[in-house]
Amino acid sequence: MEIQLDCLPCFMRQVLDASRMATDQLEIQKAIIIDTAKLIQNYEEYKYSPSVGREMHCIVKRHTGVSDPYKDVKARNIKTALSIYPSLKHFLFKKKDRLYWALKIAATGNIIDSAIYNDIDVESQVEKELDSEFAVCDLERFEKLLKDCKTLLIIGDNAGETVFDRVLIEDFLCLNIIYAVRSEPIINDATAEDVCASDFNRSIKVLSSGCNAPGTIIEECSSEFLEIYNNADIVISKGQGNYEAMSEQKREIFFLLKAKCPIVADRLGVHVGDYVLKSNKYGE
Amino acid sequence: MEIQLDCLPCFMRQVLDASRMATDQLEIQKAIIIDTAKLIQNYEEYKYSPSVGREMHCIVKRHTGVSDPYKDVKARNIKTALSIYPSLKHFLFKKKDRLYWALKIAATGNIIDSAIYNDIDVESQVEKELDSEFAVCDLERFEKLLKDCKTLLIIGDNAGETVFDRVLIEDFLCLNIIYAVRSEPIINDATAEDVCASDFNRSIKVLSSGCNAPGTIIEECSSEFLEIYNNADIVISKGQGNYEAMSEQKREIFFLLKAKCPIVADRLGVHVGDYVLKSNKYGE
Repeated sequence: MEIQLDCLPCFMRQVLDASRMATDQLEIQKAIIIDTAKLIQNYEEYKYSPSVGREMHCIVKRHTGVSDPYKDVKARNIKTALSIYPSLKHFLFKKKDRLYWALKIAATGNIIDSAIYNDIDVESQVEKELDSEFAVCDLERFEKLLKDCKTLLIIGDNAGETVFDRVLIEDFLCLNIIYAVRSEPIINDATAEDVCASDFNRSIKVLSSGCNAPGTIIEECSSEFLEIYNNADIVISKGQGNYEAMSEQKREIFFLLKAKCPIVADRLGVHVGDYVLKSNKYGE
Repeated sequence: MEIQLDCLPCFMRQVLDASRMATDQLEIQKAIIIDTAKLIQNYEEYKYSPSVGREMHCIVKRHTGVSDPYKDVKARNIKTALSIYPSLKHFLFKKKDRLYWALKIAATGNIIDSAIYNDIDVESQVEKELDSEFAVCDLERFEKLLKDCKTLLIIGDNAGETVFDRVLIEDFLCLNIIYAVRSEPIINDATAEDVCASDFNRSIKVLSSGCNAPGTIIEECSSEFLEIYNNADIVISKGQGNYEAMSEQKREIFFLLKAKCPIVADRLGVHVGDYVLKSNKYGE
């Protein structure tokens, strides 16, 4: 989806948060915001929201010399998620409609980044949101494809959310599963290192998409990733950034996320805060 | 208080809202945001937040030719406030600590502009918030000055909030009351015309401050206003914009407002959402 004007002040807010994680020096923070404002003037040069996001976070890196301002936040979120992991498994164990709730657990993990910005306690938030149902759920279509599925590609989103995805993945271990991540640290998005810290089963192939934006821009992905992406029986895309980059892709993708902003919610036809499993092809 | 980095994305958000009120044309909205980003690059040239605010809203006026994008919103808010007015009077009538609650009613009127941005129903919001107490209330100091007070200057904030101020003013009609407003339309701030539409008692002198920023910048005010400002026995300043422009003034001012953003709340030592009657001199 194309960049909306509403995204621009939101980007600036995010960059300010990132600059404060990377440095305490006000003068550097000011220089970052001024460069961000310069970038916003040329936002129309960018096709996708994640491309602008990447450029903005590059400004933070350039001014502070900190290549991964979210490193500590990511480690903390993975740790918290690992501590919740047994209760997630227990939650799923009690459910009859196991696939639905495994997907819902993975979607609930998508609250991790809101937690960073809104000073929310992840544990209590998960507890509150785990039991809420999907607002849109193309489960029937998903189940149909799952019958003949051999290869499942999951395109990950945030570090910590990875542990929630693990719960979903562990129900699919009979399949050939590929879990794709960013090629390098960007915001709090998961890299291969973060997945490793999330204790994934060794049978799961963890792969860099080749793209270092906070959303998988297909044109920028590696040929190895594209080979899998084009031939996987099912592709699950996690989070808003991936949705923003891939919502108009031709191949069928299941977008699994929590709608966190009015722009994405509106595009998905849901309310802010709603959970969604939505195929870009189903019902067309 | 000086401009904080947090204000910049917030300004951009406000300008986007204003541009959408002034025009439906996306290309014009884009041009406004691009010019706003240019302005943000030079934000350090401005001393006060309301000075930047004014410049930004000038961009909207320049691109759209609409001199008062909030005209309809202001008229609607005054109408709503007038419809609530009898219930405000009744609320006050039942209270024992009449001065405290008259001040609290005027402070509650300060929610009017949040309502614009957050799609809140003013009536139900007022009902919910009217009964909540001040978090900081320098009432003792206010009462002390009131004993010998002959001239009271109130520096107004938003259109509609004016009607809430009327309830406070009507308890002071034995005094010489001056109600100061912006010199021309800016955002949803009250002008003389808006006060007129709010049915003020004729004995109240309504005066333009001479300043057209969304916060009264004393250096820009008319000599007529300054004469009253310097000699009034009590000055009440309504809202965040006036606080941002006048918090470091030498004369004693009672700031009467709802803290709507973390920056102002922090400066006042309260939480976001708290109501405040605070003298800049008391307790020093």
